[in-house]
Amino acid sequence: MNLKQMVGIEAASYVKDDMIVGLGTGSTAYYFIEELGRRVQEEELHIQGVPTSFASRKQAKALGIPVKTIDEVSYVDLVVDGADEISADFQGIKGGGAALLFEKIVASYAKQVIWIVDQSKLVTKLGRFPLPVEVVPYGEKQLFQLFEEKGYRPSFRLTADGELLVTDCQHHIIDLHLDVIEQPHALDEELNQLVGVVEHGLFLEMVQTVIIGQEDGVKTIVVPSRKSK
Amino acid sequence: MNLKQMVGIEAASYVKDDMIVGLGTGSTAYYFIEELGRRVQEEELHIQGVPTSFASRKQAKALGIPVKTIDEVSYVDLVVDGADEISADFQGIKGGGAALLFEKIVASYAKQVIWIVDQSKLVTKLGRFPLPVEVVPYGEKQLFQLFEEKGYRPSFRLTADGELLVTDCQHHIIDLHLDVIEQPHALDEELNQLVGVVEHGLFLEMVQTVIIGQEDGVKTIVVPSRKSK
Repeated sequence: MNLKQMVGIEAASYVKDDMIVGLGTGSTAYYFIEELGRRVQEEELHIQGVPTSFASRKQAKALGIPVKTIDEVSYVDLVVDGADEISADFQGIKGGGAALLFEKIVASYAKQVIWIVDQSKLVTKLGRFPLPVEVVPYGEKQLFQLFEEKGYRPSFRLTADGELLVTDCQHHIIDLHLDVIEQPHALDEELNQLVGVVEHGLFLEMVQTVIIGQEDGVKTIVVPSRKSK
Repeated sequence: MNLKQMVGIEAASYVKDDMIVGLGTGSTAYYFIEELGRRVQEEELHIQGVPTSFASRKQAKALGIPVKTIDEVSYVDLVVDGADEISADFQGIKGGGAALLFEKIVASYAKQVIWIVDQSKLVTKLGRFPLPVEVVPYGEKQLFQLFEEKGYRPSFRLTADGELLVTDCQHHIIDLHLDVIEQPHALDEELNQLVGVVEHGLFLEMVQTVIIGQEDGVKTIVVPSRKSK
């Protein structure tokens, strides 16, 4: 069993009967959804899944997990998702899989947020992983130039075919190659104020539980002083 | 000649040869674009127009004004647009015509912003006009509920047929019925921080020149201490 699979299965144990569960996106969340599907089939677990991407929706439906959109539920008990980087003070970068907008929307309405990662995602400070910024296509070249002038080393996210990647919500992604983000909260506010920025990959003050896959087993950290809603 | 036509024609006199001109949207900007078209035809004025909506683009092209997108130009010399409300300290609400996102994108890259209005748009404080918030459809009902809890009296913008209005960029609009906005800058920041909000209709610290149509003529105000870029 690989590290991603280990943490995916561990996270599924947090899901109880009758919960409304946010379903993350990406190679680690994949294993979480697989295990949830198994429990729904074999243990007759009753849940409703709220997917964070078309891909997760498709996977969940194929496994027989009932799915709803975030607008069809009153709340989300728990969301389990991967992360691309987690800092020593438990801030995160997400969006490597281009699903950051829906992931952030679901996470912002969830009572509890769990991130599942292998140990390679833990860093002291954020920023080595390129920070994704989801943008409105109209004006994106102006925004790109502004990021260049600020020294943020932007690049447009492309598909494997070299085309501009289009998100589930018809936006584009500009990745910022920052190396180190010294002040994530200030950057969060700065990016939110920019016209044409829909959302970005800084997930601050969001996660309550981090489940880490290590060579010697699974380590769970409950983030101090960040209560579930 | 009606008041909207008067200020539209007056604003067109600010356009000089070889300028790159942002073309606003709505019933007042309509007259500005008409007059620009006349000057292009009769005075051989050479300009490039950057429309803020599909509607303005269509109008400009029909008049023979060469059009570019904001990403095809290096800068915008001047944008002329209407406004739904202008406060005594020259902040504005825009978006009654649902084009606020593209209008704000073009205005944020313009060296000079001119608003053209009839006198009925002048208010002491903003907020009697419903404040449009452009939102990502996914999660919009959660956002709507949040606005209700905050006492912002939200309503979804509908078309004449009673369908949800879809913007040029495939988003929806929630109008906030606030009556009075005591602290527009604080509200601007609050809305920008909300996940799922793409943009909103508060246009703060943006306009340099306001041209007002009054019964006794046209009045032009150069906003003190707000220099063009």
